[in-house]
Formats: sequence, structure tokens, C-alpha cells
Amino acid sequence: MKENEKYMKEAFLQAKKAYDLDEVPVGAVVVFNKKIIANAHNMSESLNNFTAHAELLALSQASKNLNSKYLNQCELYVTKEPCLMCAGAIMLSRIKKLYFGASDIKKGYRFYNKNIFLNKIDVNFGILEQECSLILKDFFKLKRKK
Amino acid sequence: MKENEKYMKEAFLQAKKAYDLDEVPVGAVVVFNKKIIANAHNMSESLNNFTAHAELLALSQASKNLNSKYLNQCELYVTKEPCLMCAGAIMLSRIKKLYFGASDIKKGYRFYNKNIFLNKIDVNFGILEQECSLILKDFFKLKRKK
Repeated sequence: MKENEKYMKEAFLQAKKAYDLDEVPVGAVVVFNKKIIANAHNMSESLNNFTAHAELLALSQASKNLNSKYLNQCELYVTKEPCLMCAGAIMLSRIKKLYFGASDIKKGYRFYNKNIFLNKIDVNFGILEQECSLILKDFFKLKRKK
Repeated sequence: MKENEKYMKEAFLQAKKAYDLDEVPVGAVVVFNKKIIANAHNMSESLNNFTAHAELLALSQASKNLNSKYLNQCELYVTKEPCLMCAGAIMLSRIKKLYFGASDIKKGYRFYNKNIFLNKIDVNFGILEQECSLILKDFFKLKRKK
């Protein structure tokens, strides 16, 4: 398994936790010096806070753990393309690299501007795309049945 | 004083609180049924969290107070043009109207996409622009002297 798949797998395990809690299954991890220093899953429902997305929580946690406002030596792995809010938070964090799994055509940041991170943050996507996408599809399929 | 100036004045008082705490002076209030139901100022330094912007805090607080994920009957007043993260949070909140005071040419959301809120959220800006802008200029002038 490639290194970036290894970290995405950890983000995916976070998404699974969210799924089990009836949260939209998105997970994220922050990596610093090849170690995971923060992990989180979407907690919008359990925290009753629409801003409690996996990326925002993981980045905040990483910032606290490193006691640093900026995360310029860190990488963020997230199972789904970040929304506009999270893309903004990623910019503020000055993270070095962003990896995401599934694309989000309707609500992902690229809908608004594909070049938000251009020349600032290195972006890679499509890592473990199938798993990351399938868990979301399953979740929403179940929701529609309820 | 016009109604929207009255609410912006309250947001400005929040910005002043931030200034006194050595935080970047930005303040926000959320209005529902002509009443302020949430107010906040930037707390990035005191909470040691780069996501603790006035808008994010005020919207989260309003959502909690109304016990509702969506704020589609509310208005947000903020002293400065929201950054991309806060613009994303405003979208997620589905707020009805956004009012902001000072423009932020370099880091405001319009730098990335002027039409983020088009046909979704009614945007008005330039309310009490001078005060809202001056307090920021003063703050950064002092910072540079330190």
C-alpha cells in the first residue's frame, strides 16, 4: 500500500465511525513528520453544529497539538472533497498538502473556484476514491429509505 | 439611525472588544425577528484556534440558540467582508441576508469568487464602513510598531 493510501485508510476509518453514529461519513487525519497528529470525523449532528466538519475539527486539533497557528509542515487527508468552508480553513491553516478521496461535484470547493489552492497548497485527489465515495452513497441511500 | 446601522453598531462593539483583547478586531451579530440572538468577536488568539472567527462563532451560537441547523430566517451582520471559510459557513447556515462593513480586498471571499452567494443569500456591504475599516487599520498599525 502506498503511503498516501495508508493515511487515507485512517481517514476512511474515521468516516466509518461517523457512519456508525448516523453522521454524514467523512473523515480526516493530519500528518506531521509521517505521524498522524490529529484525526476527526464529521460531528455536525452530535455537536449540533453545522460547522463541525471533519476537516475543521482535525485542523483545529492539529493546531492545538502543535501549539501553532500554522500547519505548514503538515498534510491533510480527507475522504471527500472539502466544502467551501473547509477549503477556506485549509487556506488559513497554510497546510502543505491536501489529499482527498471522493469528489463532490455539487458542494465541493471546486464548484466555486477550481484554483483556490493554486501555487499555495499542493492538491492530490482520487486516493481510495471508491471506498470514500461508496460509504457516502450508502449513507444517503439509507437516509432516503427512512 | 437606520435599522441595519443599528445592528452593525452592535457588531462594531464586538469588534472593539476584540481590539481590547489584542485580537484582530472583527465582530458579528445574528438577528432573528429583529432581535440579536447571537454575538461574537474574533477569538483566534485567545482560543488558540485559527478557525475562531467572529462569523463562525456567531453562526454556531445562533444555531444552538434556535436549536436549528439552518438559519434561513436570520440575518448576519459582520464588520468585515468574510474570508472564504466564513463565506462557506454562511452558505452552510443558509442565512437570509448578509451585511458587512469594511471590504477586504486581499483576503475577503470576493477575491476567489464574487458570485458565491448569487441567488442564494442577499448581500449588502459598506454599512458603517469607515468605523469598521478604521479599527482594523489602527490595529495593524499598532502591530507593526510593536
